Amino acid sequence: MSEPVRIGLLGHGTVGSAFAELIESRAGAIEAATGRLPEISGVLTRDNGDFGEILDASELIVELIGGTDPAREHVLSALRAGKPVITANKQLLAQHGDELFAAARESGVQLRFEAAVAGVIPVIRVIQESLAVDRIEKVFGIVNGTTNFILTEMAQSGASYEDALGRAQDLGFAEADPTEDVNGADAAAKMAILARLAFHTAIGLEQVDYEGIERVKPDDIAYAKELGLSLKLLGVAERRDGGISVRVFPCFLYRGHPLAPVEGPFNAVMVESPAITEVTMSGPGAGGLQTASAVLGDVVSILAGESPVHETREQLAVVRDVTSSFYLHLEVADRPGVLAQVATVLGAHEVSVKSVVQRGMGDDARLVMVMHECLESRFKAALDEISGLDFLRSQPRSIRVIEEEFV
Amino acid sequence: MSEPVRIGLLGHGTVGSAFAELIESRAGAIEAATGRLPEISGVLTRDNGDFGEILDASELIVELIGGTDPAREHVLSALRAGKPVITANKQLLAQHGDELFAAARESGVQLRFEAAVAGVIPVIRVIQESLAVDRIEKVFGIVNGTTNFILTEMAQSGASYEDALGRAQDLGFAEADPTEDVNGADAAAKMAILARLAFHTAIGLEQVDYEGIERVKPDDIAYAKELGLSLKLLGVAERRDGGISVRVFPCFLYRGHPLAPVEGPFNAVMVESPAITEVTMSGPGAGGLQTASAVLGDVVSILAGESPVHETREQLAVVRDVTSSFYLHLEVADRPGVLAQVATVLGAHEVSVKSVVQRGMGDDARLVMVMHECLESRFKAALDEISGLDFLRSQPRSIRVIEEEFV
Repeated sequence: MSEPVRIGLLGHGTVGSAFAELIESRAGAIEAATGRLPEISGVLTRDNGDFGEILDASELIVELIGGTDPAREHVLSALRAGKPVITANKQLLAQHGDELFAAARESGVQLRFEAAVAGVIPVIRVIQESLAVDRIEKVFGIVNGTTNFILTEMAQSGASYEDALGRAQDLGFAEADPTEDVNGADAAAKMAILARLAFHTAIGLEQVDYEGIERVKPDDIAYAKELGLSLKLLGVAERRDGGISVRVFPCFLYRGHPLAPVEGPFNAVMVESPAITEVTMSGPGAGGLQTASAVLGDVVSILAGESPVHETREQLAVVRDVTSSFYLHLEVADRPGVLAQVATVLGAHEVSVKSVVQRGMGDDARLVMVMHECLESRFKAALDEISGLDFLRSQPRSIRVIEEEFV
Repeated sequence: MSEPVRIGLLGHGTVGSAFAELIESRAGAIEAATGRLPEISGVLTRDNGDFGEILDASELIVELIGGTDPAREHVLSALRAGKPVITANKQLLAQHGDELFAAARESGVQLRFEAAVAGVIPVIRVIQESLAVDRIEKVFGIVNGTTNFILTEMAQSGASYEDALGRAQDLGFAEADPTEDVNGADAAAKMAILARLAFHTAIGLEQVDYEGIERVKPDDIAYAKELGLSLKLLGVAERRDGGISVRVFPCFLYRGHPLAPVEGPFNAVMVESPAITEVTMSGPGAGGLQTASAVLGDVVSILAGESPVHETREQLAVVRDVTSSFYLHLEVADRPGVLAQVATVLGAHEVSVKSVVQRGMGDDARLVMVMHECLESRFKAALDEISGLDFLRSQPRSIRVIEEEFV
């Protein structure tokens, strides 16, 4: 019999314990696939275990602590000791990717991280292996299950943001402190990782602009439904104007868009390139067992053979002012000339209107518009000017729209 | 500079020529990713080139001839000569998989075939690598773009099968001789390959039961729409009763099923296991460039490193009588007692009815029913008996239904 493969496990929370169980229950299959039986050589928790001893006793390290400290130190130590590392830690990779990949390349060992992005969807493997030499134009999708659950709940029941968040917390789809999920920071870290791999460029979290869903109102969702639109929190990484744009924002999609039917705590990612046209992948966005399963896939890949470490091959500029289409919601005094004034301001900034819904409500009226694509700075300038008009009853609300209509 | 990698190309049709162009246009990226510049060392066509010379001059072989003869001989020769092979040939793998995988294992070289199944969707890689040690329960989906285009066309325009097929041919989505696509044989070959990989079992094309879409009528699709159903040609490989069932059949799906929105010439595959729950992947089902891109992904993987060859680890029985849910369409004389008689026959065979639509048309009536799940042999026995009832105006028509309702 061959020598067992000794795996050092850092962290023993939901994912860590699910991983330890999975290693045991699938041990036979792992031996059949790789020729070696797996064995947990040590577990590091906040209170127990010594990292140095575990490192010495292990052939590869699985990092499931989360956070960047001490995870960064441990991962660097392991890589420098020539031991491959598997991590599910998106913040670690988004904030310290350059340093970690450099350490892995120097030691000639693998650093794998399928579980860091998009749950069970094998998007890292597909980008790094299937599409390794393809010229990817765009990677985008729904990479946060908590916010997708909340938006689905709001759309289906008309619930407020606060009530939908409460329900997500009750069902275990949102944490007690949901800040990083709902403000878009979690999705931003994932998009930084995807952009790095898709475009072979060094990109850090601080270069990703993000917005969350905290200010979304149920009636925006209701009005948009009339226009055939549904709301998602999208992460988008794409080539634009010779550079790249990497952003996270709430966004309306037309019915028929491949991401429109993705509901509840699911994730979905689309990759576009001229050679493949597009590929869409979807599945549950979280869950301890699901994440552990993605980690196990990486363990098996490392045991199966060599694979190159990500390398920066380009240095692309990050383009921050890009063209987008917008939805605009105005509460205005119901008197003649209001629509004309709004349209005039938009026109002066070269923003053209695609569709309008106007509805009276006593003395007030709602004016809901969808614009054609324009440079975001132009729309923002128009919006600033509209915000100063005297007939406005409340702050204007705007949300991006993917204009593309699939049929 | 490193030595170039010499690739022998067998076949120069749509995919072969797209592959040769892609190798040229992506040469720089291939060198950056693998350290080696690719070079086509020879091209074998029906009229030109000598296989022996090309094999000697090449480090790896790309087989894009199609058909099993002489593809089988060439692939075996290459593997036995210790040269890795990439093929897009589903019939070759479905009919001669055991022999080919054995030859690859004996020589210790890779045999890769991502392009053989489901167009740009990297389902082979996901099953063989991401889910290598997972216990997959079910792989199913839409693996033939021609038939999905025809069914979409029939549903959207009410066109007959013949007219929709003609339109598919005009647009290049169906071949002049579409037999293998429309009768389900093409999908059956792909499902044999997926079943082999998912369940680590030896399975040949002759063990896959298949039905096509040639007998689907526009009014079945129209009635089903009223029941919230859309029609797809599904390939299903799943664990059943301690064995596996691998089949291809037209099937109704409820709205909300992840495969229901997949329209036109697209493919989509779902993989289910306890650890991942499910993952769904979709994308264009065909196209020379798309197929060539999948082939190129395999070339790069071979250059990047070793990867184990598929190995049969189990010998599972193929279960052929499984439980399914059915749609049943009857044209009957419009007189009292007809529904009661039909229901009595169904009940006698332990088939229970889930929903009924009955509609009079002069002297005749249509009786459209959806059953609850039952053993297929029971439903068929009931159907045989119903076929003999004297009030029937035409042959009964039945189509399977996925009963699961997603919300």
